[in-house]
Amino acid sequence: MNLFKVYPLFKITPSYAKGCFVYDKNGKKYLDLYGGHAVISIGHNHPNYVKSINNQLDKIGFYSNYIINDLQEKVAKKIKHFSNCNDYELFMCNSGAEANENSLQLSSFHTKKSRIIAFKNSFHGRSNAALGATDFKKIKSELNKLINVTFLEFNDHEGLKKEMSKNDVSAVIFESIQGVGGLNEPKIEFVRLMSELCKKYNACLIADEVQSGFGRTGDFFAFQKHKIKPDIITMAKGMGNGFPVGGVLINKKIKSKHGMLGTTFGGNHLACSATISVLDTIKQESLLNNCKEIEIYFKEKMGEISKIKIIKGRGLMLGLEFDYDTSKLRENLIYKHNIFTGGSSKKNILRILPPLNIKKRHVNTLYNALKEELK
Amino acid sequence: MNLFKVYPLFKITPSYAKGCFVYDKNGKKYLDLYGGHAVISIGHNHPNYVKSINNQLDKIGFYSNYIINDLQEKVAKKIKHFSNCNDYELFMCNSGAEANENSLQLSSFHTKKSRIIAFKNSFHGRSNAALGATDFKKIKSELNKLINVTFLEFNDHEGLKKEMSKNDVSAVIFESIQGVGGLNEPKIEFVRLMSELCKKYNACLIADEVQSGFGRTGDFFAFQKHKIKPDIITMAKGMGNGFPVGGVLINKKIKSKHGMLGTTFGGNHLACSATISVLDTIKQESLLNNCKEIEIYFKEKMGEISKIKIIKGRGLMLGLEFDYDTSKLRENLIYKHNIFTGGSSKKNILRILPPLNIKKRHVNTLYNALKEELK
Repeated sequence: MNLFKVYPLFKITPSYAKGCFVYDKNGKKYLDLYGGHAVISIGHNHPNYVKSINNQLDKIGFYSNYIINDLQEKVAKKIKHFSNCNDYELFMCNSGAEANENSLQLSSFHTKKSRIIAFKNSFHGRSNAALGATDFKKIKSELNKLINVTFLEFNDHEGLKKEMSKNDVSAVIFESIQGVGGLNEPKIEFVRLMSELCKKYNACLIADEVQSGFGRTGDFFAFQKHKIKPDIITMAKGMGNGFPVGGVLINKKIKSKHGMLGTTFGGNHLACSATISVLDTIKQESLLNNCKEIEIYFKEKMGEISKIKIIKGRGLMLGLEFDYDTSKLRENLIYKHNIFTGGSSKKNILRILPPLNIKKRHVNTLYNALKEELK
Repeated sequence: MNLFKVYPLFKITPSYAKGCFVYDKNGKKYLDLYGGHAVISIGHNHPNYVKSINNQLDKIGFYSNYIINDLQEKVAKKIKHFSNCNDYELFMCNSGAEANENSLQLSSFHTKKSRIIAFKNSFHGRSNAALGATDFKKIKSELNKLINVTFLEFNDHEGLKKEMSKNDVSAVIFESIQGVGGLNEPKIEFVRLMSELCKKYNACLIADEVQSGFGRTGDFFAFQKHKIKPDIITMAKGMGNGFPVGGVLINKKIKSKHGMLGTTFGGNHLACSATISVLDTIKQESLLNNCKEIEIYFKEKMGEISKIKIIKGRGLMLGLEFDYDTSKLRENLIYKHNIFTGGSSKKNILRILPPLNIKKRHVNTLYNALKEELK
């Protein structure tokens, strides 16, 4: 039995990883400035992470959500403490797609409507409603097209006002920094307009923080820069440092009801222990500060390379924009320089999503490789 | 921050588990004949499971699906070996909902249609398309209602023929034994008719084995009793013994294409190591045989209790049907006898979904408790 071939594969088989390095089965060492799309947040096999899961494995790994799980309560308390998001409740699930799917479901329950506003170049995941709200035609089936979604450009104030005034919108879902779509960000005035109009027309504002959340931008959530309070916040990738876990923060104005949402695995004891180790490590190692420091250093160094036209993003969710296709450059970085970076739906953008505890010397490694490739 | 209250909770906080026992934080011991809805397949904290995850944690826990993961290839080979399902390819994801969601998505890609046939009392998961195909009105929002689904009764040959002949059906999705819906099974002739009509009208037959698969019924998959070859097989619950993992087996007639499906966490190294430990333990401990042996013993013993009207299900996916609401009985089993059993959407059915390596003495414990409660 083979694997169903949906991924264009780089021919590397990792067999060991530590910190910001991945080693293939022949022992070759790669600098990981990608983390499998922003998943590795505190570094591969971080001792806190390994210890936390191992300890939990000796106790209990999983039980049904129909009995009390005190670790979920601990995760909720810690997320509140780290994010300063008050007035929210937590629902745990297994992935970013599930988090967004649940957020759209909740919006529909709360508003009794179903139309969605999403944005050009958005990506929200691979399940049906999330795919409906995703702006990549090639990955959409007839089934996804049943979802009633209007795609707007970021910062299109008039378009947003017009659509919202129809009063049939259930949810506006947005990424504060787009991931695979190429690191575009809406302006603060537009984010605030979304927030106001959602209140005015009884729609839910969903901040998709699946990639940008959990400290990735130097703030706990990327939307916090805009000083808004979304109705729903979704999170996943960096949350478990590779352990499959997702979560939804739900404003208290949306009332819970037994049976409204549900998950078998979501919030299992191992997932909670992984999440707790990530949160504790963000604090112990001051990773939000490190994010901001390395961002400044990164932008300084990359600013010296003239072929890089724009440096996009915030914190350690970064993109290097060129005026040509970067596929070959990315390949050379991997195979010649042993550095993982990320692609994007925009072929001229290289994405940089390293662990949050990366050091300046790792930026230098990329700088030197780019200097050599771009000379 | 509190948890979003969607679960009616039993007031027990498990803190340790081993084999078919769960211990609460005060050290009270519970016999687990439920496994968090059929999730615990080889027993809580099975040494093979703990060792497999421990070992993998020392190597690498996660990397992007855009580079080779040789453990996924190993999982595929082992599933083929154990299931004897030839002509399939494997796609891994994180949960049963994701598995079913991907199966419906694939069907729509393959057939270029979107209408779904599902069955009364079905449950396929909590994401949008899966919820569309789920027959529980109370948990459905406006968003789920956009999915075009026709619900038929099991064994309604004429209804199925009529609907299929409209030639707009993308997928027929069914559980060989319904889970939460109350352990109903379609008859063999009906299953074969579904299979024939799907071929005739170019629709995909999806066997939802999320709960019934991975040995739960004594066969590797529950549909195998009917000697059909579904186009797509989904699996999850027992696959990782509590580790969040799901999978889709896709008949080779459905051709893969880069980008067609995708997942960030799905098939991560830890999930694979959990799955491999489950498969190896099923073999080492002859759990398919044990399933069948205990089924016979269970049905014999429960047959002695006159208040049990029907014993439903196969292998260790079992239900006890009474002619009254069993909520109080289930509560007494938990709080007085310290035995976990499962509820169902049909209040008169108690579900029994123990680990596959349960012994006759555990059946006796339930028997004695029921005798006392039902005297």
